[in-house]
Amino acid sequence: MSEIVTAGILVIGDEILSGRTKDKNIGFIAEYLTNIGIDLKEVRVVADDETDIVDALNALRKRYTYVFTTGGIGPTHDDITADSVAKAFDVGIGHHPEVVARFRERWSEQDLNEARLRMARVPDGAELIQSATILAPGFKLGNVIVMAGIPSIMQAMMDIVAPKLKSGVRMLSDSVRANAREGDIGGPLREIAIAHPDTIIGSYPFMDEDKRPNTNLVVRSRDPDKLNAAMTAVKEMLAALNVTTR
Amino acid sequence: MSEIVTAGILVIGDEILSGRTKDKNIGFIAEYLTNIGIDLKEVRVVADDETDIVDALNALRKRYTYVFTTGGIGPTHDDITADSVAKAFDVGIGHHPEVVARFRERWSEQDLNEARLRMARVPDGAELIQSATILAPGFKLGNVIVMAGIPSIMQAMMDIVAPKLKSGVRMLSDSVRANAREGDIGGPLREIAIAHPDTIIGSYPFMDEDKRPNTNLVVRSRDPDKLNAAMTAVKEMLAALNVTTR
Repeated sequence: MSEIVTAGILVIGDEILSGRTKDKNIGFIAEYLTNIGIDLKEVRVVADDETDIVDALNALRKRYTYVFTTGGIGPTHDDITADSVAKAFDVGIGHHPEVVARFRERWSEQDLNEARLRMARVPDGAELIQSATILAPGFKLGNVIVMAGIPSIMQAMMDIVAPKLKSGVRMLSDSVRANAREGDIGGPLREIAIAHPDTIIGSYPFMDEDKRPNTNLVVRSRDPDKLNAAMTAVKEMLAALNVTTR
Repeated sequence: MSEIVTAGILVIGDEILSGRTKDKNIGFIAEYLTNIGIDLKEVRVVADDETDIVDALNALRKRYTYVFTTGGIGPTHDDITADSVAKAFDVGIGHHPEVVARFRERWSEQDLNEARLRMARVPDGAELIQSATILAPGFKLGNVIVMAGIPSIMQAMMDIVAPKLKSGVRMLSDSVRANAREGDIGGPLREIAIAHPDTIIGSYPFMDEDKRPNTNLVVRSRDPDKLNAAMTAVKEMLAALNVTTR
């Protein structure tokens, strides 16, 4: 149970890089993975370009336990994710018979054109990620999980695939509102961070409701005792600074 | 004027990877760069980890004309961007006298503690990105532009640095609502994409106000004539499909 399970995200799409579409998937997947005990270590966003996708995928899949991709699995010429994944793994790709059979139930012969059949292209050896409400399936090949770019569909796919994943010891988290400016607590906070090496202490400034600079402090650890010890030290530090009466 | 100017973004911060904070900077910078004729080619998000930052920065700065970083320039122990940039460039780093002087104007001797002085750490040879309203400056070193993670400050920094950047021939864009399902137009759209190689044609499905699957088609090109030719072909294709009367 002490294994650390890691992940990378690869967001695929010209529309994110042009700014036309604002990504909503990174934040969702990040929070989801944290909740199931998987450490998200890196995110990359690349264009609808086969070389870029293959290179990024190969870098990420060698480095992390899992890689989650979003985008590029639709019916048009710019949807090249499935082919790029097959290329990265150096496996074949073809129309998946199970997906084609489902498409035939849904569409007439005329409507099941080449473009729609494109959504049935799945790399050899991949496991489908599908449900009654998901039209074009995602898939899992090795440690790579390929999902849709449309947030609602991606989220449904996460729910399907998540129970099949290894998960590690969950990262625990506790936070406190410092009622202090970040610059006033940076020094003692550093001392606490050094004294509590198995924790991660984050400091996040914000403007509070009185328009004063304020700070949220977040302590994270896989060990509840170490988490509590560090958080106690943080709270004692804040009390000593009399920051609540500034 | 025919030079293509490219960029990468490096978002630095544990809080983005844990899902605690939802990034708002990628979309803003993406749109900003598109508007000034710079092609955003890649985005990476990494943790507050020196090795991860240095590796990503060195990969991106060699590949693209510019790299924009956000996050990690505050006063606490987890703000390690400036030191990581210095390490990536293999240059020294110290308290920038001009920044220290400004801090002395603003803070008393007591308030100007080690944590706040940390925000004056700037790699040797870097050019400051600052204004009267920006407390802790960003900086530009070589082709790397280092900015705050807080969106309002990052946006102010973009406005300061943008006029100093090379910009390329602006990517032009035109879009049309297809009033068609993506799967019905994928075939002819691919033909148009092949016939118009100096354009980029994107297809973006969405649910319209009548809850029907619909599609936005976006044509992009640096050449206005080629853009118009491709968009004309797209509109003729849509008209031929009689899609407006589906």
